[in-house]
Amino acid sequence: MSDSAPVNDDVFRTVVRVFYEDTDATGVVYHANYLKYLERARTLWMEAQGATHRALAADRGVGFTLADANLVFRSPARLDDRLTVSVMVEQRRRARIVLAQQIDCENRVLIKARFTVACVRLSDFKPCALPAFLTKET
Amino acid sequence: MSDSAPVNDDVFRTVVRVFYEDTDATGVVYHANYLKYLERARTLWMEAQGATHRALAADRGVGFTLADANLVFRSPARLDDRLTVSVMVEQRRRARIVLAQQIDCENRVLIKARFTVACVRLSDFKPCALPAFLTKET
Amino acid sequence: MSDSAPVNDDVFRTVVRVFYEDTDATGVVYHANYLKYLERARTLWMEAQGATHRALAADRGVGFTLADANLVFRSPARLDDRLTVSVMVEQRRRARIVLAQQIDCENRVLIKARFTVACVRLSDFKPCALPAFLTKET
Amino acid sequence: MSDSAPVNDDVFRTVVRVFYEDTDATGVVYHANYLKYLERARTLWMEAQGATHRALAADRGVGFTLADANLVFRSPARLDDRLTVSVMVEQRRRARIVLAQQIDCENRVLIKARFTVACVRLSDFKPCALPAFLTKET
Repeated sequence: MSDSAPVNDDVFRTVVRVFYEDTDATGVVYHANYLKYLERARTLWMEAQGATHRALAADRGVGFTLADANLVFRSPARLDDRLTVSVMVEQRRRARIVLAQQIDCENRVLIKARFTVACVRLSDFKPCALPAFLTKET
Repeated sequence: MSDSAPVNDDVFRTVVRVFYEDTDATGVVYHANYLKYLERARTLWMEAQGATHRALAADRGVGFTLADANLVFRSPARLDDRLTVSVMVEQRRRARIVLAQQIDCENRVLIKARFTVACVRLSDFKPCALPAFLTKET
Repeated sequence: MSDSAPVNDDVFRTVVRVFYEDTDATGVVYHANYLKYLERARTLWMEAQGATHRALAADRGVGFTLADANLVFRSPARLDDRLTVSVMVEQRRRARIVLAQQIDCENRVLIKARFTVACVRLSDFKPCALPAFLTKET
Repeated sequence: MSDSAPVNDDVFRTVVRVFYEDTDATGVVYHANYLKYLERARTLWMEAQGATHRALAADRGVGFTLADANLVFRSPARLDDRLTVSVMVEQRRRARIVLAQQIDCENRVLIKARFTVACVRLSDFKPCALPAFLTKET
């Protein structure tokens, strides 16, 4: 993963606050909870593209599942920190999309991550085509 | 809630280990995570009565929801602690059951709790009669 | 707990969005996660009174722990719901404070809760006096 | 990551049960919770090597933090599943160790993962040498 933060207009950003629930006894955020922050940002990004998870499930019976995840942990977040979580589309295919994500705190990069998100039919978790609004560039 | 731990044969017990995921930055278990431990014990207790959540959902379309919860927190649990979580039936009604639960660590009482668990149809979360195996005394 | 929602100016409110991480296989929010929402609101309320958890820990070595919790679950929250979580002081004592809290979704009451929060020294979890800004009425 | 499950004596295995807390509204385990299962297995593996997190923190002031994580999600786990979580050392260096992990359910591979775990001083999260018992082959 490259060192430079993405800086163009295609980057979606949201802010997440660190609460006690997110930390562990070492005093910093528990590693698995960063994946929750990253998923919140993907959900809000998708909503900004035009659809909520609930509508997609109800109207089309489709949802999303992760095919793979790659994370580099550079620096920990602490209680009360306000983090910026970003989402940028790296690749669009028929049934999956690759997203580059990053978590920053006051211009320090904490986490760099890349996720392959697959579209699935919720009835059996078999792959299916992504909704059209996700396959075209915006 | 009375001070004495229940000591008869009608008490179901299970052991839970405290991992990093359960703790927070104060160094002890995050309060909401005790409710997860208590629910794990209720699930295993129900299984010992004859049914898994998955079978109940698939075969009868029923599940359980909490109507109320009352907890007294006496002493915190720490990383690597091995806790004993108990379940005792306090009251059985047609569509709900009252359970007294407790979390202990090496003969110290950490948490005393009481939950009213209601049986619901999973399609609409409306109350329905408890499965027969839960309404009779064992 | 009384039926009427508190409606005066002494009620602090914050908004919480339901994400996948909060739900369970029954399709609604997992019960223990409501306690996380309630704690987020208490943290933001305390901050509105003048102090963050991190500053209290660093400057005075004090933190908060729950002495007891009482919850009534009326109606479940679902994915993508936007919930309003409120905090109202019910009683102030030297070393503890009683807070009435509520979770609403579009004018429907989902949860009513009451927590006794105790102030403790973080070095040994022994009770200590609440910071002055929490003991006086604002 | 290779397709074949590790089958030699150097593989540590533990069993994890899926509870409601682990699932989400799509009906399967929420992705971030697999990382909790994987961390539980690493903790128990380390304990089998001779040390608990609590003892390492108290006696030496050291702990562990993730440097990176790579996961492939092949198939979802469901409520009540009993999963086998494995840990195998892939590489040992002075201040970090690379672990290959896998989650199986009834001979089906659900998740393949690789983690670089770094040893840090808990006072400032700076890297430090791994405890001796982790650097030599057992």
